[in-house]
Amino acid sequence: MSNVHHFYPGLDGVVAAETKISFLDTVQGEIVIKGFDLIELSKKYGYLDIVHLLLEDKLPNQEEKNRLENKLKSNYEIQVALYEVFKLLPEQTHPMDALRTGISFISGYDEKIDDRSPDVNKERAYRLLGTVPNIVANSYQILTKKEPVHPDKDLSYSANFFYMITSRKPTAIQEEIFDLSLVLYSEHEMPNSTFTSRVIASTQSDLYGALTGAVASLKGNLHGGANEAVMHMLLQAKTVEQFEKLLENKLLNKEKIMGFGHRVYMKKIDPRALMMKEALKQLSDIQGDDRLYRMCEAGEKVLEREKGLYPNLDYYAAPVYWMLGIPIPLYTPIFFGARTVGLCTHVMEQHDNNHLFRPRVNYIGERHALSK
Amino acid sequence: MSNVHHFYPGLDGVVAAETKISFLDTVQGEIVIKGFDLIELSKKYGYLDIVHLLLEDKLPNQEEKNRLENKLKSNYEIQVALYEVFKLLPEQTHPMDALRTGISFISGYDEKIDDRSPDVNKERAYRLLGTVPNIVANSYQILTKKEPVHPDKDLSYSANFFYMITSRKPTAIQEEIFDLSLVLYSEHEMPNSTFTSRVIASTQSDLYGALTGAVASLKGNLHGGANEAVMHMLLQAKTVEQFEKLLENKLLNKEKIMGFGHRVYMKKIDPRALMMKEALKQLSDIQGDDRLYRMCEAGEKVLEREKGLYPNLDYYAAPVYWMLGIPIPLYTPIFFGARTVGLCTHVMEQHDNNHLFRPRVNYIGERHALSK
Ligand SMILES: CC(C)(COP(=O)(O)OP(=O)(O)OC[C@H]1O[C@@H](n2cnc3c(N)ncnc32)[C@H](O)[C@@H]1OP(=O)(O)O)[C@@H](O)C(=O)NCCC(=O)NCCS
Ligand SMILES: CC(C)(COP(=O)(O)OP(=O)(O)OC[C@H]1O[C@@H](n2cnc3c(N)ncnc32)[C@H](O)[C@@H]1OP(=O)(O)O)[C@@H](O)C(=O)NCCC(=O)NCCS
Repeated sequence: MSNVHHFYPGLDGVVAAETKISFLDTVQGEIVIKGFDLIELSKKYGYLDIVHLLLEDKLPNQEEKNRLENKLKSNYEIQVALYEVFKLLPEQTHPMDALRTGISFISGYDEKIDDRSPDVNKERAYRLLGTVPNIVANSYQILTKKEPVHPDKDLSYSANFFYMITSRKPTAIQEEIFDLSLVLYSEHEMPNSTFTSRVIASTQSDLYGALTGAVASLKGNLHGGANEAVMHMLLQAKTVEQFEKLLENKLLNKEKIMGFGHRVYMKKIDPRALMMKEALKQLSDIQGDDRLYRMCEAGEKVLEREKGLYPNLDYYAAPVYWMLGIPIPLYTPIFFGARTVGLCTHVMEQHDNNHLFRPRVNYIGERHALSK
Repeated sequence: MSNVHHFYPGLDGVVAAETKISFLDTVQGEIVIKGFDLIELSKKYGYLDIVHLLLEDKLPNQEEKNRLENKLKSNYEIQVALYEVFKLLPEQTHPMDALRTGISFISGYDEKIDDRSPDVNKERAYRLLGTVPNIVANSYQILTKKEPVHPDKDLSYSANFFYMITSRKPTAIQEEIFDLSLVLYSEHEMPNSTFTSRVIASTQSDLYGALTGAVASLKGNLHGGANEAVMHMLLQAKTVEQFEKLLENKLLNKEKIMGFGHRVYMKKIDPRALMMKEALKQLSDIQGDDRLYRMCEAGEKVLEREKGLYPNLDYYAAPVYWMLGIPIPLYTPIFFGARTVGLCTHVMEQHDNNHLFRPRVNYIGERHALSK
């Protein structure tokens, strides 16, 4: 039976789970992923290493990595019916909503849907990791009346993901930076979407349902949707001066500035943002165009000066994706693609040691008796 | 910035929201819905009254009720494309997953999808309330290779819902009992699915996404899925004696018995279950067959004696739906249909006074340094 405790708005600071997956260690300044610092990992390892680390609990050797890559490649294709569903989507469907419908739809192909055992869940996770880039890419291709793009198994996992969303094979440096962004987005403790997944999974519902909820969560502006919102601000402003003005005006109007602030980092730059900032510098140098870089730096200064707020990953991921030539409506779907591995790992942990999430409320409404 | 508090497994007893919608008052033994006791309401009012109460903050007079009913009726039809999507669903798709895909899909028709203002959200809620029974019914009809059923506007809202899922017009008493079940399922404070919806909505994501997550949550055995699980146990057992034995064996094997227990009521029968138990008695008398009633009563005694556990709503809703001739795979989708109004009301409240849900974790994994 419940004892009712304190009201924690937004569950700020409430520990909702014990986990062996990840942890934002604000004291030592580390994003801990399966024991390792994500930033250190991101300097030495690629996305498939992180996938292996999260799902197999160790960094892979070359043979294990090859096996993983082959497993994912064997799941690249999507069902013909799914293309048909995408063709039926109303034209103005939001790409995140198309993705959500796609993830929801494919649950019907899983013949073991009621089996939540660790092995079956893990196979399911690998299947999803293989498939999600295709769903992300082709739901969008079809929504925008383009031909579906077929996966290219000669490319690496990240290069294929990049290829499918841009219809261009990445250069070596583009591939490296895109892969880095996937690493940085892969896992991050208990943000809203991960929490959503675990809450859903705690009813003993399945992985597809949990991921469907996560897509819905990520779509919001205050979460994954922020990266697209940042890009729209940058495009609207065009110059350093106009961007500063735009941000100052928003602050005057008490608007929230997307790409800044974080429940956990608040008073310090998100270390992932720093990595993406370096990538943006690199792309700016290569392309001989540092306008976005300068705008972003200027924006950083405005927010630090005016509000003591610092960039989160989405702030620098947005211009990086822009300079990689990725369509803006795919920024948040890519975030989901990269995070799929983290979400699957959390759902598996929840299923393996479950306790139903069921909080209480403070009732602040009226009380009446029925008159008649 | 976060201060990390205590670990509350399953958020047991944690107050996650302030609300004017509803409250389980365990002291006075009341399910408070907008100030009124749900059980009292259920004796005097029907489902449309509750819908009006939740969305308009008052019990309707006859004219208001007629207006509401007409509004819902004007939203009964679903788009042709949605029928096509249902036809494409893999054959073994779970009806809750079909429903989830349907809810996700229709978001694309909403031209104001980014508008979360109260009025627009309310209109959206009415549209959804009109449409959901059709999605519930026809996703299932088509999955099971039957012809779609078209809504009948000459029937009341509940009678039409009943008609669409059974292809039979209900008798007066069937209509009354089905309507009662919708009232009892309509709203219930902060169960997992409602919490899921609010967590998703707190990123400023939209109502469709929040409801999609709620369907995923409700599907789980520990939540909405319990009503179907109960019916399967009853059918497996067939007699009072075998049902007692089945329950005793499950308890010996430390299995959870679906339909019993509740985070909040635990040591007392769920008052909604009591209402459904009476309805089951009524149907048993009319149909001259009290086998299910006797089985359920016997089961109650076993669980009380062996574990001090009491039935929740799902325990008695299941045999009632069975005696109403409703296909078992629709029990949980109906729960969602009835709860749609509660979910919409919570999402609107969340959007109107938002704070992002973002809890923390206790990290219990290892820490390593990268060696190479
Ligand atoms: C991420 C976020 C929701 C976390 O915030 P939170 O822990 O819920 O904290 P709050 O939103 O209550 O913010 C606390 C204070 O900082 C201010 N603040 C936080 N982020 C802000 C931002 N991006 N722009 C302007 N002000 C901000 C709030 O207005 C509030 O000020 P107040 O106390 O004067 O009202 C918030 O920083 C935000 O909305 N950021 C923009 C969206 C975004 O980039 N999301 C991606 C996150 S990875
Ligand atoms: C609803 C439910 C999840 C709430 O439970 P909770 O608050 O999370 O509590 P727990 O599951 O931790 O249960 C507490 C204790 O009661 C026991 N218990 C609770 N419900 C039980 C059930 N239905 N059958 C057998 N034992 C049960 C648990 O085994 C546990 O015993 P323990 O302390 O010896 O381990 C739980 O009662 C349940 O699983 N019921 C069956 C599913 C169901 O009917 N759901 C619909 C709810 S509307």
